[in-house]
Amino acid sequence: MVLRFQASRALLPLTPSSFLKFCPSSIQLGFTSISSSPTKSFTIMAASDHYTFGRYKIDPKEVFYCTTLSYAMVNLRPLLPGHVLVCPKREVQRFADLTADETCDLWLAAQRVGQKLELYHKASSLTFAIQDGPQAGQTVPHVHIHVLPRKGGDFEKNDEIYDALDEKEKELKQHLDLDKERKDRNMEEMAEEADQYRKLLL
Amino acid sequence: MVLRFQASRALLPLTPSSFLKFCPSSIQLGFTSISSSPTKSFTIMAASDHYTFGRYKIDPKEVFYCTTLSYAMVNLRPLLPGHVLVCPKREVQRFADLTADETCDLWLAAQRVGQKLELYHKASSLTFAIQDGPQAGQTVPHVHIHVLPRKGGDFEKNDEIYDALDEKEKELKQHLDLDKERKDRNMEEMAEEADQYRKLLL
Repeated sequence: MVLRFQASRALLPLTPSSFLKFCPSSIQLGFTSISSSPTKSFTIMAASDHYTFGRYKIDPKEVFYCTTLSYAMVNLRPLLPGHVLVCPKREVQRFADLTADETCDLWLAAQRVGQKLELYHKASSLTFAIQDGPQAGQTVPHVHIHVLPRKGGDFEKNDEIYDALDEKEKELKQHLDLDKERKDRNMEEMAEEADQYRKLLL
Repeated sequence: MVLRFQASRALLPLTPSSFLKFCPSSIQLGFTSISSSPTKSFTIMAASDHYTFGRYKIDPKEVFYCTTLSYAMVNLRPLLPGHVLVCPKREVQRFADLTADETCDLWLAAQRVGQKLELYHKASSLTFAIQDGPQAGQTVPHVHIHVLPRKGGDFEKNDEIYDALDEKEKELKQHLDLDKERKDRNMEEMAEEADQYRKLLL
């Protein structure tokens, strides 16, 4: 059983200035830093800026949370309400490729995102998973944590979530490869969901 | 397909003194601290000392790696060679119950353990998963990361690992509840595996 998230709020277009309010730190690509110090830089995001996810560009409208070294984005086709991905800003394939700072930042981000989304979606548990490398089912070679709010009866058998997660991982790449498939869930809907989550994580 | 780990080396009994060499930091229970400062304490482990995993006692012989705040143990019935659990020393049920220090320590430990065991078992990927709460399949209410070295063909379909992982989670509690079931894999075999891993993580 695959539940599809249906956003119910009116669309709230996200402007670059409102995005900056939530994600003021510099990202690997797509920002122009005014200061030469990465820790103290003030950043300007232009319309063409984006996050990177493997070889794909992620529109900042899909990103609802970011820290110094990590970001969280909504899913094109979430497996359950609140199924999101948390990624390091730096593109590395394997979890062990992350520095200690990146590892801590990534998991503290995932922890915070999970806690907020579990509450928001009235769930009672969370699944966290990294498919770290192709033999573990990774399709996009950029570390990403799947975070899924869980509740009783969301899947008839708990382990079905993993079958479905694996299918989602395959779909993720297919849909990123085939941008035309984005009609499945348009940017406005995803931006709206991201906007809702962004407010939770203020 | 469930592969069972069969240790092949001669048994190497682990003495308290050799354990102290690898795990010198104090744990929540089971150590007597000589100093009043937890960060500078020197600890003595008596024969009855143990780690806690929910309401269960874990023999230090099963523990092959520990840090200030976390420990890693072998599995009673590993799903694949190198399938181990990484836990915070402090007993908390939910991932969000961990402090930032505990969260970082836990994941840095899991990262290091995964990297070493992947190499040791000649694997090429890793699965990391937390079933965080009962609706996510958690059976023992003490945070634990499943770390599984993965290689091509270890499961006919990648997603089978998750079905099997879920079954293992259920078995974990059943076997901890029914200590007599420990005949499935005796302490000597588990201590030997832990000893092998301990050397990797020096």
